[in-house]
Amino acid sequence: MVARYERIADALREEILSGVHPVGSQLPSEAELAERHAAARGTVRQAVAVLAAEGLVGSRQGARRIVLGRARSQSFAELHSFAQWARANGYRFGGQVIAQRRRRASGAESARLACEEVLEVLRVRSLEGEPVLLERTVYAGWVAAAVEELPADCESVTEALYASTGLVFAYGEHLIDAVAAGAEDARLLGVRRGSPLLRQRRVTTTHEGRPVESSDDRYRPGSVAFSIRNSIGANPLARQAGDLRFGPGEHMFES
Amino acid sequence: MVARYERIADALREEILSGVHPVGSQLPSEAELAERHAAARGTVRQAVAVLAAEGLVGSRQGARRIVLGRARSQSFAELHSFAQWARANGYRFGGQVIAQRRRRASGAESARLACEEVLEVLRVRSLEGEPVLLERTVYAGWVAAAVEELPADCESVTEALYASTGLVFAYGEHLIDAVAAGAEDARLLGVRRGSPLLRQRRVTTTHEGRPVESSDDRYRPGSVAFSIRNSIGANPLARQAGDLRFGPGEHMFES
Repeated sequence: MVARYERIADALREEILSGVHPVGSQLPSEAELAERHAAARGTVRQAVAVLAAEGLVGSRQGARRIVLGRARSQSFAELHSFAQWARANGYRFGGQVIAQRRRRASGAESARLACEEVLEVLRVRSLEGEPVLLERTVYAGWVAAAVEELPADCESVTEALYASTGLVFAYGEHLIDAVAAGAEDARLLGVRRGSPLLRQRRVTTTHEGRPVESSDDRYRPGSVAFSIRNSIGANPLARQAGDLRFGPGEHMFES
Repeated sequence: MVARYERIADALREEILSGVHPVGSQLPSEAELAERHAAARGTVRQAVAVLAAEGLVGSRQGARRIVLGRARSQSFAELHSFAQWARANGYRFGGQVIAQRRRRASGAESARLACEEVLEVLRVRSLEGEPVLLERTVYAGWVAAAVEELPADCESVTEALYASTGLVFAYGEHLIDAVAAGAEDARLLGVRRGSPLLRQRRVTTTHEGRPVESSDDRYRPGSVAFSIRNSIGANPLARQAGDLRFGPGEHMFES
């Protein structure tokens, strides 16, 4: 069920993105919004707090907030699923499993995915006919059988798993950096060894916080970037030292 | 002025990060939190919505929310300012201006920074005695004089500008990808040409949305990563095609 404030936030976001409230303009006051949406002011305040956390509107200046965004809005599903993202953006896309095997979880994987056995899958994703993304995904044992049933050229693993098991990916934790293409990366992405790859490592969980998968995704140079807005009021992005030289950093993944 | 709900969100965040509410546990109900903080339930609801947007607590499951995070929390100032981040993490750090000049804004810069003249500054930042970050920052004309007055080895430009002019960086828009080190990058960071660099391009504005600077920051391999949490309820991170081959993408910076 979608809460009332979320529906109001969705409507306001849509109005901002479509230009009804242009960047730099003032958002209507809480009282006006409450009247317009026939909602309590507290509900409107919650909705506006969501937009502020997304960086679409600024902190309060007097009675009103300033519209900051026409930020590229992307749902969690679109960020998580290469297929949903590519489709939403009108790109031709594809995917192919290169290798897949069950094995015992390493110590770190066992801690991260809360299981003893995992399924490791290597996939190449293509955009406009060219390989752009290499996914090395490790699935928790409880979802392994469902993943194994998917065809090797499954377009959207996310959608297929939802269709077959009702599984919903709900939370993600991401670590983003750059790495040089190794031999396998170079061969499968069609780039030179040592090319700069954008790397996104992540752990994804269900609504209940149950780990589903961890992944090491690498993008061909120039193919994809990540974008984010932040503010004094909400900073979802964190910088962290990525080298043990700098002390015992918090690392989500072993290297 | 900090709103009541923000203070309650700060207190709850602190409790989550310090383990008072462990990961996987249920957050106290709204009614309990309202009583504890002597606040209205609507105010508590707003505070909890902030934490949900940060990915620290999950969507509602019945009456309560599940604690998801002990996410690395980092303020906007710490993300924006290399010095504040390094200091908060106990690293030795330094900075040095390599080159600096005023020039006319390019068309894209003029649109981005809303000015005709800019100040371009090239800085190297070091961590634990080694160069790790190359900043190519373009400041809007109105702040150029204040930047020029800073010493070449100014530790924190952010703090120095705040001290001298009261300027507060309040909003950022970031584009993150990987690039191969060019000749200048390689020389100043002490890496081979072609090494994979994590690149963060950004535009930062004041509270009122006035552009202050745009920057192209490049990190030495292995030195720094970005981390982020997201959820179905709040996805601040977006993926975008970074190549014109994929059509007229929305690019914040010219290449």
